[in-house]
Amino acid sequence: MNEKLIFVTNDDSYASKGFAAAIEVARRFGRVIAIAPQTVQSGKSQAITLFDTLRLTKIKKEEGLTVYALNGTPVDCVKFAFDYLLKNEKIDLTISGINHGSNSAVNVLYSGTMGAAMESAFYGIPSVGLSNVNHANDADFTACIEYGIRVVESVINNPISRPLCLNVNVPDIPIEQIKGIKVCRQTRGYWREEFYERTDPYGGKYFWLTGAFDNQEPQAEDTDEWALNAGYVSVVPVQADITAYTQIDELSKIL
Amino acid sequence: MNEKLIFVTNDDSYASKGFAAAIEVARRFGRVIAIAPQTVQSGKSQAITLFDTLRLTKIKKEEGLTVYALNGTPVDCVKFAFDYLLKNEKIDLTISGINHGSNSAVNVLYSGTMGAAMESAFYGIPSVGLSNVNHANDADFTACIEYGIRVVESVINNPISRPLCLNVNVPDIPIEQIKGIKVCRQTRGYWREEFYERTDPYGGKYFWLTGAFDNQEPQAEDTDEWALNAGYVSVVPVQADITAYTQIDELSKIL
Repeated sequence: MNEKLIFVTNDDSYASKGFAAAIEVARRFGRVIAIAPQTVQSGKSQAITLFDTLRLTKIKKEEGLTVYALNGTPVDCVKFAFDYLLKNEKIDLTISGINHGSNSAVNVLYSGTMGAAMESAFYGIPSVGLSNVNHANDADFTACIEYGIRVVESVINNPISRPLCLNVNVPDIPIEQIKGIKVCRQTRGYWREEFYERTDPYGGKYFWLTGAFDNQEPQAEDTDEWALNAGYVSVVPVQADITAYTQIDELSKIL
Repeated sequence: MNEKLIFVTNDDSYASKGFAAAIEVARRFGRVIAIAPQTVQSGKSQAITLFDTLRLTKIKKEEGLTVYALNGTPVDCVKFAFDYLLKNEKIDLTISGINHGSNSAVNVLYSGTMGAAMESAFYGIPSVGLSNVNHANDADFTACIEYGIRVVESVINNPISRPLCLNVNVPDIPIEQIKGIKVCRQTRGYWREEFYERTDPYGGKYFWLTGAFDNQEPQAEDTDEWALNAGYVSVVPVQADITAYTQIDELSKIL
């Protein structure tokens, strides 16, 4: 296999365990350049930084690996890599993650990890977003690394149509219980929030957003939520075009 | 027409001219409750606030209109409205905007205005995201208000399939030159960035992200970019499911 140039980013910051795991996956395939957010950027979706300045810090450099931190969002990291730092390099693939927590179902839209993966695909660079359903800081990434390598290997060695962006989630069960990989569609459902109300020491009221996922099709065996609950690694190909084509005709009649 | 309950939000903050314009549209249809971000949230996509507290400030209350500011993202505003403040009310429609600047093409994915509109549709509340291609603070919203009213009226009076989320953009030309409304699909293309490099007074290097849109199909007459350039108000129905269905079969063969 030829040595590749792999770009790595995430949303849990350069200091997270999952980021080190993503770099471990990437290094199997060649040279790695990584830019991750300086601070935790969970739930930042495809946000970009328009009205603040960006600063880059070199974290480490060793044979075949350079790691930077950028004080921006995951998408900022991708843009900074592709349009500035690596402008004259040919990047073969982006790995985003490994996220601490599931990015299945509609989480894909809130996720900074998947926001970065989607951004990479916009630039024509195939991307694999990897997520561990276990969101603990010290989660075990063994299965994620093994399945991450398998998916990346398949993407590199097969002529899959472009653009390509994969949302890969690994269930929180021992690796020997994982039944394999299942290509799925995004589960229909959404988060309902419960706002925790608190009072600060000065009498002011403030809130924390917390929620629970409402799966609107728990029986649908072609969805990522079903696959994860059944013990599979879920893989959902995602795209940038969010046009609801089925509504164009009916809207054209009334507008 | 029965009086409706309209929820209004945006991403340019409660103090923007476009927000006042959106409220003007909404008031034609009934009672209005508005929660907008405390500060500018352009480019915040569908981001949510997980690790910071949220605080609500009442800005004004008059007959048929209450306006609040929330120190969060546009999606936080929607969630706070639907799952807390208006939990026991039946909201008929969400208007998000009127955005200062275009949300055509791939902008729909970065836009906080459209992030909020999409979030509303997740909850089953139909939504209309309105954007003025002119992004100036003092832009003229006359045409946006007129066409906003037309679109909202159509949505309220017609049985359109659900979920429903419309991305409406109004070209930056005098209202009498606007040729009408065109239902379109999202233009393929993406932003290429140019990072402006500067030096702070202490010798540190920092960057500003700036970019230009690369339209990959300028001739396609069914796209929103084409419609806007041709003098139409563009309307793109958008959806939450970003699964790339056409890739499921080929991926299933190799994974």
